[in-house]
Amino acid sequence: MPDIPDHSAVVEAEGHLIDSQILTTIFDTVIERGAHFEVQRFEIGRTNDEFSRLRLKISAPVAATLQRLLEELLPLGCRAVKDVEQDALLRPADRDGTAPDDFYSTTNMRTEVRIDGRWVQVGRQRMDAVIAVDRSPGGAAATCRKLRELKAGQLVVCGLSGLRVVPQFRDRERSDFAFMSNEVSSERRVEASVGRIASLVRETKRRGEQVVFVAGPVVIHTGGTQYFSQLVRAGFVDAVLAGNALAVHDAEHALFGTSLGVDLEAGVPVQGGHRHHMRAINAINRAGGIRGAVEAGVVKSGVMVELVRANVEFVLAGSIRDDGPILDTITDMIEAQDRYTEVLASAGLVIVLSTMLHGIGVGNMLPAWVPVVCVDINPAVVTKLADRGSSQTIGLVTDVGLFLHQLAKALT
Amino acid sequence: MPDIPDHSAVVEAEGHLIDSQILTTIFDTVIERGAHFEVQRFEIGRTNDEFSRLRLKISAPVAATLQRLLEELLPLGCRAVKDVEQDALLRPADRDGTAPDDFYSTTNMRTEVRIDGRWVQVGRQRMDAVIAVDRSPGGAAATCRKLRELKAGQLVVCGLSGLRVVPQFRDRERSDFAFMSNEVSSERRVEASVGRIASLVRETKRRGEQVVFVAGPVVIHTGGTQYFSQLVRAGFVDAVLAGNALAVHDAEHALFGTSLGVDLEAGVPVQGGHRHHMRAINAINRAGGIRGAVEAGVVKSGVMVELVRANVEFVLAGSIRDDGPILDTITDMIEAQDRYTEVLASAGLVIVLSTMLHGIGVGNMLPAWVPVVCVDINPAVVTKLADRGSSQTIGLVTDVGLFLHQLAKALT
Amino acid sequence: MPDIPDHSAVVEAEGHLIDSQILTTIFDTVIERGAHFEVQRFEIGRTNDEFSRLRLKISAPVAATLQRLLEELLPLGCRAVKDVEQDALLRPADRDGTAPDDFYSTTNMRTEVRIDGRWVQVGRQRMDAVIAVDRSPGGAAATCRKLRELKAGQLVVCGLSGLRVVPQFRDRERSDFAFMSNEVSSERRVEASVGRIASLVRETKRRGEQVVFVAGPVVIHTGGTQYFSQLVRAGFVDAVLAGNALAVHDAEHALFGTSLGVDLEAGVPVQGGHRHHMRAINAINRAGGIRGAVEAGVVKSGVMVELVRANVEFVLAGSIRDDGPILDTITDMIEAQDRYTEVLASAGLVIVLSTMLHGIGVGNMLPAWVPVVCVDINPAVVTKLADRGSSQTIGLVTDVGLFLHQLAKALT
Amino acid sequence: MPDIPDHSAVVEAEGHLIDSQILTTIFDTVIERGAHFEVQRFEIGRTNDEFSRLRLKISAPVAATLQRLLEELLPLGCRAVKDVEQDALLRPADRDGTAPDDFYSTTNMRTEVRIDGRWVQVGRQRMDAVIAVDRSPGGAAATCRKLRELKAGQLVVCGLSGLRVVPQFRDRERSDFAFMSNEVSSERRVEASVGRIASLVRETKRRGEQVVFVAGPVVIHTGGTQYFSQLVRAGFVDAVLAGNALAVHDAEHALFGTSLGVDLEAGVPVQGGHRHHMRAINAINRAGGIRGAVEAGVVKSGVMVELVRANVEFVLAGSIRDDGPILDTITDMIEAQDRYTEVLASAGLVIVLSTMLHGIGVGNMLPAWVPVVCVDINPAVVTKLADRGSSQTIGLVTDVGLFLHQLAKALT
Repeated sequence: MPDIPDHSAVVEAEGHLIDSQILTTIFDTVIERGAHFEVQRFEIGRTNDEFSRLRLKISAPVAATLQRLLEELLPLGCRAVKDVEQDALLRPADRDGTAPDDFYSTTNMRTEVRIDGRWVQVGRQRMDAVIAVDRSPGGAAATCRKLRELKAGQLVVCGLSGLRVVPQFRDRERSDFAFMSNEVSSERRVEASVGRIASLVRETKRRGEQVVFVAGPVVIHTGGTQYFSQLVRAGFVDAVLAGNALAVHDAEHALFGTSLGVDLEAGVPVQGGHRHHMRAINAINRAGGIRGAVEAGVVKSGVMVELVRANVEFVLAGSIRDDGPILDTITDMIEAQDRYTEVLASAGLVIVLSTMLHGIGVGNMLPAWVPVVCVDINPAVVTKLADRGSSQTIGLVTDVGLFLHQLAKALT
Repeated sequence: MPDIPDHSAVVEAEGHLIDSQILTTIFDTVIERGAHFEVQRFEIGRTNDEFSRLRLKISAPVAATLQRLLEELLPLGCRAVKDVEQDALLRPADRDGTAPDDFYSTTNMRTEVRIDGRWVQVGRQRMDAVIAVDRSPGGAAATCRKLRELKAGQLVVCGLSGLRVVPQFRDRERSDFAFMSNEVSSERRVEASVGRIASLVRETKRRGEQVVFVAGPVVIHTGGTQYFSQLVRAGFVDAVLAGNALAVHDAEHALFGTSLGVDLEAGVPVQGGHRHHMRAINAINRAGGIRGAVEAGVVKSGVMVELVRANVEFVLAGSIRDDGPILDTITDMIEAQDRYTEVLASAGLVIVLSTMLHGIGVGNMLPAWVPVVCVDINPAVVTKLADRGSSQTIGLVTDVGLFLHQLAKALT
Repeated sequence: MPDIPDHSAVVEAEGHLIDSQILTTIFDTVIERGAHFEVQRFEIGRTNDEFSRLRLKISAPVAATLQRLLEELLPLGCRAVKDVEQDALLRPADRDGTAPDDFYSTTNMRTEVRIDGRWVQVGRQRMDAVIAVDRSPGGAAATCRKLRELKAGQLVVCGLSGLRVVPQFRDRERSDFAFMSNEVSSERRVEASVGRIASLVRETKRRGEQVVFVAGPVVIHTGGTQYFSQLVRAGFVDAVLAGNALAVHDAEHALFGTSLGVDLEAGVPVQGGHRHHMRAINAINRAGGIRGAVEAGVVKSGVMVELVRANVEFVLAGSIRDDGPILDTITDMIEAQDRYTEVLASAGLVIVLSTMLHGIGVGNMLPAWVPVVCVDINPAVVTKLADRGSSQTIGLVTDVGLFLHQLAKALT
Repeated sequence: MPDIPDHSAVVEAEGHLIDSQILTTIFDTVIERGAHFEVQRFEIGRTNDEFSRLRLKISAPVAATLQRLLEELLPLGCRAVKDVEQDALLRPADRDGTAPDDFYSTTNMRTEVRIDGRWVQVGRQRMDAVIAVDRSPGGAAATCRKLRELKAGQLVVCGLSGLRVVPQFRDRERSDFAFMSNEVSSERRVEASVGRIASLVRETKRRGEQVVFVAGPVVIHTGGTQYFSQLVRAGFVDAVLAGNALAVHDAEHALFGTSLGVDLEAGVPVQGGHRHHMRAINAINRAGGIRGAVEAGVVKSGVMVELVRANVEFVLAGSIRDDGPILDTITDMIEAQDRYTEVLASAGLVIVLSTMLHGIGVGNMLPAWVPVVCVDINPAVVTKLADRGSSQTIGLVTDVGLFLHQLAKALT
């Protein structure tokens, strides 16, 4: 189609473009959209440490296609040369909770915005947010906000001008490099994987960052209580994000020795034993909640007791399937998301134990540079978490109780 | 242990004790608890239609074991002879949201309470509730209430006296009998199963009861939109219980032709396309919610549009992983549970389409006599729903889009 | 249909009819076939130890339905009164490998045949076999034979006369009773289950019976080598049934430290490492097979080395997906089945480690009274094995490497 | 480590190095082995159609590491400059069935060998084979052979000299490009995928190549018989590779209306119905096998009948779990593999229907350029097939019966 006057733009990118398969994805994206590319310049990093540099001309038959393509290339680190020479387009939200139609929706990768000629790094980076800009005499600030947090009049970044995204590059030299390549198979040696996760935990603590656990009730069902408790006592658990069920089954186990009606010592189902969890809820709520129940001696052992004693923060989010719930459970989802987000602000490593619901929730809130370990006996859950744009997810398909046993052994 | 003075009680049960394996479970339960039984009388139903009658003496070495055993036998329809000769023990809730320690926690089976010498059927039967009793001049009423709904002073059934439970008996003569025996295997002919589900839908409508769908966003991802829309238009959908994601992905599909960034016609992933769902949320919320968006012509097609046009009730419950959420989503879980429960009050059949979270939530709210069909491509989900005391669950392991295609063909 | 002259028969059964849900299944079967039943007599076992006794009249509108029904009731222990008063019908095979059309196809349950007025127990009980009868002066012998083993003229049991089947009753008092009720869920405490399996192993050895392992290569991939080796050295492995892949990956691991191209110590994939298994095959075959390779010191460690040293029998069956195969692998399936069957003749317990193919093969060969433990991380495999008429199967969903670690710890 | 005298080599590669992520893998491999690289030259393809060219210097601290690395880089298309300047090293097999220790083990990608100064393409390309060389006056021929096919004295390619491998490049412009990127998720619109597979089938026929189906018995269980029969009659099935079970369950279905004891019309299990498959085996074997049974009118419908009538070749391979087997089943695995391989020699497209066992077997036999479609309701099976070096595998997670229904509709 040489005769058709094409719409074209020149984009540039730099970094470990080959290691992270970014270059492949850039080319794929252009072709999939029915556009063409011509490499104007490509300098390959000569060694493993050096960056590569790309300058690419993109042509599309229709202007809209080109525009959409540029939008898609941005998260891959491709900046249209003309766009980075301009400031970002800022427009006020037209009403509370609503952005202008062409608002820029964020990824979880490090992002910079050009405001008044200066590049400003966006704060609280997360995916599916808008970038709210506050101008002040000392300079402008840009922050990720949820749509619902917008107030009418708030300045919001729109379009693509004045935006730079830095994709998360894989670091090939890190000791855990190969491991990080989010394999999911269960036909691997679990013990080797646990060893690497233990190293990640130690490195995170050494850097002064927090290790946050996201835990489903399977932790209790699979006999993980004592091992998780060891981790808490040894100081490897900085915060726990969970739901109502974790606390309820934990208390049920402490009070009756069962979990959802299964006798955990004997491994046998207890006919009618599922009443126990209702009594556990009643007992905790009479005491005014978990802290009250621990202090009053109503519950004497278990994960929640250890968290209270070690003064570890926990946030319990409600769900449509909750029984009770206990008084500590936050039943409003907006409040629960806000509390989760606060806790995750200082997370350097997140370990998700058999809870797809909370795992996906947490994945949405995290920037791309915080690694997430996802442990589940169901490979589909691990794949699903790794799928949702959280390329930093490391999957491990195994029994959670045995995993905690091994992790506690490796760390304590 | 003939010398030890045993603690013993006599229980009676009647019904299709053999068909429903209730007799086996009764015997198992006694032995597992370390107790003994002696059949004092057993009259077997001579034909398929006749009831069987059992009178059993149970002995346990410890009084507590006996008591616990009687509690476990109650949901199997076994009534201790001495207990049914007494009124139920009614005690006031000591404080809001809290029941006396020995409150009776309900199953989802039909239950009767003896109050002032008369047997009263419990209303709004569901599992994991307390039985609240209101005495009035015209007679007493007994109703299932969640713990959190209790007010201080409310009379609550405690202990086991004056309680009768009627287990759900399988009806062997029903045309769908064999099918109902909650098989889960996918190596079956799906088409045969869909035919039976279509019959169940028709029978439910004929009885004047409602068919309630509980739907995950997979309905959209798998191309089910047009088939589900057909079902709505043909009047087979009386209500939809779902989450935020159903409405968001439906609108994304209507507005951009994608669902979670996948082009549904072409089946190919759209790089960066997951921004579309944020724009869909923004567009709906600017219009004041789904009804507004439909009326303003912002969204012109899709499942939600059909529901609005056909005036079908829908309830969207929030969750920790929601984006947005759209304004229609109920973010408080207590309110969402209450709304779900209201809708389910008139349900004669519930069909769960690929959503474990809402499926379990709904399962908790239903009495045992409302059949639930659970369709999911993941056998683990189907098993899990069938596991949770919802013996009325029929599982079908298949692609939801293809299932809806077949169901629409069978019904419209 | 009172006017239609019914075809009817009277059947009797006795045993723990309620415990094993046999009575329920009998009634279900009659109704599903469109027939009717009338209980003529039912004496319930008064206590857990006593048998129940049933006498049932069955009526069907068509003679063929009745006949088919009687055939289906036989494996449930129901004997038509008229049939047990007669000898079995013996007919000669018409040609090699082929039985008369109405041959009796066996179940895996204990079976007796009436020959010349005497009841003879069938030898080598297994499912899907014919019963071959040899008359000799000292009395008749009846044995399960595969169709292909029949020679023309061999007497074969046909029809239903003179046959008694004793269903496998659950023994409710056995310590492992509840556990045996083939639960499959992974949300259980694995450690408790391993403890029970260890007890089964010890009891089996104490009875002087053999513990046979059926092992897939996942034993090697998941790092189980050292733990399985411990079990071999401690004498808990009496025989191993496997395929070519177990031996190949074991040798690959011993020679190169990898298994299917994954470095087991480091847990990382080795690019191109899958050549290693071809070299392992070449090395073993040059030495004339496994024993040669062990004796020549070509392979110095691993599962196969331990088996050779401990003189434990192993049988490797070929398959369509084999590489090589190594010389020890039996490539003819008829010979392989025969060798498997021989080894299983003395099995008191069979443990299947992550191999659906060989697990199903073994399940087909075993009588119903030999318990089978099936360990796999994939619940579908466990369910499938339990489904195939092997009600004695105990499923455990967990990582095989961790399972072997725990089992070795519990036993050695 | 600048002071240590490194061992180094220069390699070259060319092709669509970026599209197929080959460049990334090359760099990864070097670093993972503890070696270093320096890009001496890299010319990027300026447009989508142009090749890229790479010249890389690799240094390793130890000679053995360098050698191993070169071996691993070969399948990625990297040729050591010094190696391609030499002829391949040919050595005679020392004994039947055994190659010299340093034999070259093939991948499934196009391979060339330099013999007497000329590059010769290797025939019958497949993975895990040796390259046998026959010198004749007219020139040398090189062919893939299984180890077991080697005769003592046969010349075999050893080491790495004189070898070139051409990796399979993705063709980004092909209409099915995005689809080919072996996605496995089931949350996609199955109908869109079936449309693409139908196109692949038509294109294959248009090119005059064969469409080979590899089919498990699930085809029968899921009600696929009539749809698969339509495909046979319409000429879209050129050959069928299967096992004993397909033929047995097909005949059982034709004779009794059941498959493994399930009534396919009604979808209900038939108590004791699994005897039917033994009778089917007996009936077929009495007639001397499938063709005999079809000709004699013993079996009148079903997949096998259609294959016989349409004169479509089928090969049934035995397995350890077979009942019978029927006379057509090849019980020796070496013969079965040979027959499979012959059939696959003319395959242009392979469709695997729910059989992991035969699917993996077939995957091992195919060159990399024959696309494989794998349909299974279990995502783990699809992933496993795609994992085994068969990058050309396209996975589809859905019910096989419904898939065949859709495919027949799209094609006939």
